[in-house]
Amino acid sequence: MKKLRFLTAGESHGKALVGIIEGVPSGLALTVEELHAELRRRKLGFGRGARQKMEDDRCEILSGVRHGRTLGSPIALMIANQDWKNWSDVMQAESYSGEVRRKLEVPRPGHADYVGGRKYRHEDMRNVLERASARETTIRVALGAVARKLLAELGVGIGSRVTRIGSGEDTAPVTTAVEAINAIADASPVRCLGEDAGAAMVREIEAAKKAGDTLGGVFELLVSGLPLGLGSYVHWDRRLEGEIARALMSLNAIKGVEVGLGFHAAATPGSLSHDEFLVSEDRNGLSSPTNRSGGIDGGMTTGQLLVVRAAMKPLATLMSPLRSVKLATGEAAEAHVERSDVCAVPAAAVIGESLLALVLAEAVLEKFGGDSLEELCARWEDWNRAVPPIRKSPLP
Amino acid sequence: MKKLRFLTAGESHGKALVGIIEGVPSGLALTVEELHAELRRRKLGFGRGARQKMEDDRCEILSGVRHGRTLGSPIALMIANQDWKNWSDVMQAESYSGEVRRKLEVPRPGHADYVGGRKYRHEDMRNVLERASARETTIRVALGAVARKLLAELGVGIGSRVTRIGSGEDTAPVTTAVEAINAIADASPVRCLGEDAGAAMVREIEAAKKAGDTLGGVFELLVSGLPLGLGSYVHWDRRLEGEIARALMSLNAIKGVEVGLGFHAAATPGSLSHDEFLVSEDRNGLSSPTNRSGGIDGGMTTGQLLVVRAAMKPLATLMSPLRSVKLATGEAAEAHVERSDVCAVPAAAVIGESLLALVLAEAVLEKFGGDSLEELCARWEDWNRAVPPIRKSPLP
Amino acid sequence: MKKLRFLTAGESHGKALVGIIEGVPSGLALTVEELHAELRRRKLGFGRGARQKMEDDRCEILSGVRHGRTLGSPIALMIANQDWKNWSDVMQAESYSGEVRRKLEVPRPGHADYVGGRKYRHEDMRNVLERASARETTIRVALGAVARKLLAELGVGIGSRVTRIGSGEDTAPVTTAVEAINAIADASPVRCLGEDAGAAMVREIEAAKKAGDTLGGVFELLVSGLPLGLGSYVHWDRRLEGEIARALMSLNAIKGVEVGLGFHAAATPGSLSHDEFLVSEDRNGLSSPTNRSGGIDGGMTTGQLLVVRAAMKPLATLMSPLRSVKLATGEAAEAHVERSDVCAVPAAAVIGESLLALVLAEAVLEKFGGDSLEELCARWEDWNRAVPPIRKSPLP
Amino acid sequence: MKKLRFLTAGESHGKALVGIIEGVPSGLALTVEELHAELRRRKLGFGRGARQKMEDDRCEILSGVRHGRTLGSPIALMIANQDWKNWSDVMQAESYSGEVRRKLEVPRPGHADYVGGRKYRHEDMRNVLERASARETTIRVALGAVARKLLAELGVGIGSRVTRIGSGEDTAPVTTAVEAINAIADASPVRCLGEDAGAAMVREIEAAKKAGDTLGGVFELLVSGLPLGLGSYVHWDRRLEGEIARALMSLNAIKGVEVGLGFHAAATPGSLSHDEFLVSEDRNGLSSPTNRSGGIDGGMTTGQLLVVRAAMKPLATLMSPLRSVKLATGEAAEAHVERSDVCAVPAAAVIGESLLALVLAEAVLEKFGGDSLEELCARWEDWNRAVPPIRKSPLP
Repeated sequence: MKKLRFLTAGESHGKALVGIIEGVPSGLALTVEELHAELRRRKLGFGRGARQKMEDDRCEILSGVRHGRTLGSPIALMIANQDWKNWSDVMQAESYSGEVRRKLEVPRPGHADYVGGRKYRHEDMRNVLERASARETTIRVALGAVARKLLAELGVGIGSRVTRIGSGEDTAPVTTAVEAINAIADASPVRCLGEDAGAAMVREIEAAKKAGDTLGGVFELLVSGLPLGLGSYVHWDRRLEGEIARALMSLNAIKGVEVGLGFHAAATPGSLSHDEFLVSEDRNGLSSPTNRSGGIDGGMTTGQLLVVRAAMKPLATLMSPLRSVKLATGEAAEAHVERSDVCAVPAAAVIGESLLALVLAEAVLEKFGGDSLEELCARWEDWNRAVPPIRKSPLP
Repeated sequence: MKKLRFLTAGESHGKALVGIIEGVPSGLALTVEELHAELRRRKLGFGRGARQKMEDDRCEILSGVRHGRTLGSPIALMIANQDWKNWSDVMQAESYSGEVRRKLEVPRPGHADYVGGRKYRHEDMRNVLERASARETTIRVALGAVARKLLAELGVGIGSRVTRIGSGEDTAPVTTAVEAINAIADASPVRCLGEDAGAAMVREIEAAKKAGDTLGGVFELLVSGLPLGLGSYVHWDRRLEGEIARALMSLNAIKGVEVGLGFHAAATPGSLSHDEFLVSEDRNGLSSPTNRSGGIDGGMTTGQLLVVRAAMKPLATLMSPLRSVKLATGEAAEAHVERSDVCAVPAAAVIGESLLALVLAEAVLEKFGGDSLEELCARWEDWNRAVPPIRKSPLP
Repeated sequence: MKKLRFLTAGESHGKALVGIIEGVPSGLALTVEELHAELRRRKLGFGRGARQKMEDDRCEILSGVRHGRTLGSPIALMIANQDWKNWSDVMQAESYSGEVRRKLEVPRPGHADYVGGRKYRHEDMRNVLERASARETTIRVALGAVARKLLAELGVGIGSRVTRIGSGEDTAPVTTAVEAINAIADASPVRCLGEDAGAAMVREIEAAKKAGDTLGGVFELLVSGLPLGLGSYVHWDRRLEGEIARALMSLNAIKGVEVGLGFHAAATPGSLSHDEFLVSEDRNGLSSPTNRSGGIDGGMTTGQLLVVRAAMKPLATLMSPLRSVKLATGEAAEAHVERSDVCAVPAAAVIGESLLALVLAEAVLEKFGGDSLEELCARWEDWNRAVPPIRKSPLP
Repeated sequence: MKKLRFLTAGESHGKALVGIIEGVPSGLALTVEELHAELRRRKLGFGRGARQKMEDDRCEILSGVRHGRTLGSPIALMIANQDWKNWSDVMQAESYSGEVRRKLEVPRPGHADYVGGRKYRHEDMRNVLERASARETTIRVALGAVARKLLAELGVGIGSRVTRIGSGEDTAPVTTAVEAINAIADASPVRCLGEDAGAAMVREIEAAKKAGDTLGGVFELLVSGLPLGLGSYVHWDRRLEGEIARALMSLNAIKGVEVGLGFHAAATPGSLSHDEFLVSEDRNGLSSPTNRSGGIDGGMTTGQLLVVRAAMKPLATLMSPLRSVKLATGEAAEAHVERSDVCAVPAAAVIGESLLALVLAEAVLEKFGGDSLEELCARWEDWNRAVPPIRKSPLP
């Protein structure tokens, strides 16, 4: 069985979002404020619509934490729907005899509505949208905050930045320490590191908004402090990049994932695609002048900076509606239009951090085992002392 | 438990590669020739080195098939190493008292050697390379051929083509039926559909070879005949694109995966990124003028053509050797050079087909259940009759 | 991935018990009253202490059900601790600066206290007992009620009875239809079918109570309406009795599990241990004069009555306290004594029904697949028409 | 993902049995002789038929071991069918145009034949029996020998004895060290410790043989050297006894499993069912005068002797044939009779040891993680120094 497992539940306008994470070691200091901090970051970004402006999400720890420390038992988190009173008739678990409000009868292109409705035999496709909505990622961010805290105790830092929105790009290499990246990115309206690039992205969003259109983009995740040797080459499904790709592809609207050079490696000669090894000052390990691999070779972390990117398609709800069909009658119809976000890439980057934290925490627990944080930390230190990560070194 | 599971074993120069696949329904006609056909396709491509020219791999069915039909019990496949007599002293399971030949003491950049050696405490990094080698994919192709046969019985066809090698590109949209793609691609020296593009790619490979360099590229996988509704949005790890990304990222040297518009979606406005719905002639379903989603929306197949691409980094063994370190002494050294392939993208595409077949067969069995092919086929037909796939339609 | 998964969370005196079950088909009618009915049955039985007399548990459906029908999305259930105000300082997630009440410093023999405390490095073993407590089964019963409802729609009925408490036995074979068993058993103070046996068991409990002692026993689970062919022989971990044994052994205090003749088969000759096959009137299937197998042969359901028994050890908290050690000082001490149950076998039987329902629902979904109840039912009927279960027939 | 996984394949009279075990740490010394030793033990026992007398099984290590040490990569084992030339036409994977020999058309009561044949739509039920046969356990014993070797390196010893055959019983408590048990038991014709009891069991077998009948029995597994804290109470499916019960119940013909007092606990008062804690001389831990728990409390190993028993039903192939039906015609018929074993309990005990080794090795790797034996051993020693197992102590 996996060392770290989690399930999420909850509809977008349902009573609550709920998550259970099982396998977190005991003794980890954890506060609800730490969860809230990540939930607030999930709302960042220029170009978000009304819903993100609403009152902050409040997360409740229902189990697994006592007097500020994890118990080793499953941690249940709940985020109540603060607008439940306005939705209870629409979404209640109990039978409802009145006329149902807010039915979704015209499937929205680019969403799960139509396929989901046929698969699960729902006439009212609200039954689909409520679960397929990116609202679900709220609870995954809360669960990811637990994983992130565990990693932080081990010295692992996770940051992200947006590198593209529409045609606005910021692909300058990151020179900042990972710890500082989020401070800079979170202060940018588009979670971008370069100011000019950020301004260009904002202009893109404004133009798209004016056109009734939406925009996607690319974000980059960066992780420092990883040890050498998470994941493995011995069996295909132990390769860490596979788990990472799966987790990120599972995020709504993500259509591509890459590690290190990624798709650029396809157009780069071999002589410029790999990381040469140099003698390190510390005779115990090696260093390298480059990190083209993005911190993963042969399915394993090298201990260099982990670099992953994901491509997000534009939001599917447009102010200039797309064509669809009213299923009950078979007539052409326009997809439902509502005030919505123009671009959600900055938030997706934050969510991506959370998903990556969950994958990495599981990989750490698989390699190191351990039931308590104390036990885990001792093994972590032993390992890093015996086997140092590959360091990036200046060219000699 | 998964409906379809498999494990592979075997070192590159070991006695044999072995695979077991468990969960294949009974009653599927299967011959060793069908496995051999895929194994031969795995050797395709201009720019392959000596090893691929060797005698064809011979696969043996050790269990799970009787008198030409699967039994429902696990299928074990074995591909013996035809050159074992020259390797037995190097690789034998038994203790060996002589001096060990062919030790790997200088880790090769871009390979699993160094990290794997530290992780598993191997001084002789041959212990790593033998398993981390892409040779392992041979048995995955054989297992994938079983999955492919199951899908073929249901009318699902899988093809692939190379769209880029180095700077040579062939991104013309596919207009051929999937069934015909492989016939064209397999006849091309680089498994490319366009003749001019193919010639350009060959020139790239020749130039790289002259320069002692290597090349990566991009391949595209195409699947027709899928039903609407494989995978699901209800929980993140049921999303089909996640499983696909994981399987492809697990292939040696793959650094990026994308579905449908993929990374291009990041630079495309929302109005051109989604698939509008049209009234279909068949009033039971819908059609769409486009397939920008690549056949997956909300984690589920739409029934349109499935389109997935993967980016492969250049091979890491170069004739102009990369810098490395002799670990025992800590001195700078050159990575081992041997006659090797210049480019393996055409073969990777074939392997990608196999990995995709395994993922799709599992998704089919999860949705349809069933123990025998007969039972599976009956359910498949019922479903497709009740819920037709989304069809691509000409713009009205 | 499993078709049906669930996680539970929650401490015995924590804020709430929480469960998420994922994989339940859409379209299943489900009310909170159906969950409450099973939660009430969990409190049955003569010899229960104060806590069971408390106000009934109230379960809340937080997601996955809308207007009385399951959505196909994960179902989250929550049972709030109605006595939370008296426990919040002891169990709160937030840091607590006062002196902690109700520490457990002397481990109780027969409980998880000591081993759990060492494993997770808890000085206050309340951190263990709160999760190791059988209180957790409350939420498993609620989750099991969902599985039970699904099975009921397919015509599968689950019942149970107590066959032994201490030296009081009721091993008369069941002649009642499964549907009627629970009506009789639930009306008995010890959930026993025979009146005399029930009276004997009550006397046992009264005597044990007087002696400050506790009692275990054996319960039997019975399931009717199963199809032929759940589970499989093709791989060891697909055998249904394995999954059943695992689920029941996971219940607190269970020390043994058996199917059909069980341990009696060890002392019975082969000629009296198996079920002969007879020609059935329905030429499509077979019948048998006996059901010694307990409804499972070769890892698969035969379609006859499923019969499983489990042995429960006596409760470990005795009024005449057992010897233990105060860990902080290393001095001998008596285990904590509190008013507690004398015997919980009747309740364990009800919990056992729930655990079995979860296993069987998963086995059904694995064989039949399907996303909606409608789809599942159609396949179920097709199967039972084509392949009838083995029926018990009168000896000719 | 599980730290240790395995799959088996192969039909009873097929070309070969094959197994792959994935997750074994690197650096473990392993020879084929160690596997053969366990395979020979699997043939032990008075009352075995002709097949067990045949030439010894020869196991081949196809991968994962090099020069006498495990590589950390998957280990593939193969046991070729030495009688294949006599079975190839019956069992070959290739199509067969002649008349098929040795069809099974009358299902044998007590076997998987009938149910399996219906489930997988096999007319010739040989397709079932070949996989459902206990012959499959041969490869599980070989895989288990790998796990056993890993445990042995950590100081964990596994033994077994038969405690009942028919009405012959040997329930005298074990006073021998586990290391010595198998030496005594393997020398007994029925793998029993007491000489008189052994003689009684032999007489039972002789009588059954004369009567054309068969016998089942009970065996006991004993494990020493386990640490405190394998398994967990935090989630039901992490309880070690659940995994153990599942593994043993998956063994052909096993109908019951119990731990420690087992079913006897149901008739024992609480005051005599639990293990009191005493001050140990080593102030770091505790001791106990008893081991009624069988070495597991709250789902976790206590570090005391692990004691598990399983009940086996009599073999289903009797010389006095049971009644059955010829399926093709629907006429009554006698089940096929062939020279067969009268009793296989001694062998089942050896197989049980192997299955338990696999479960325990997985539990060890889950708690301790680690990729190499060296890493695992260091953590194991750290743990046992910090947290000693509960020791059995003389009553004060």
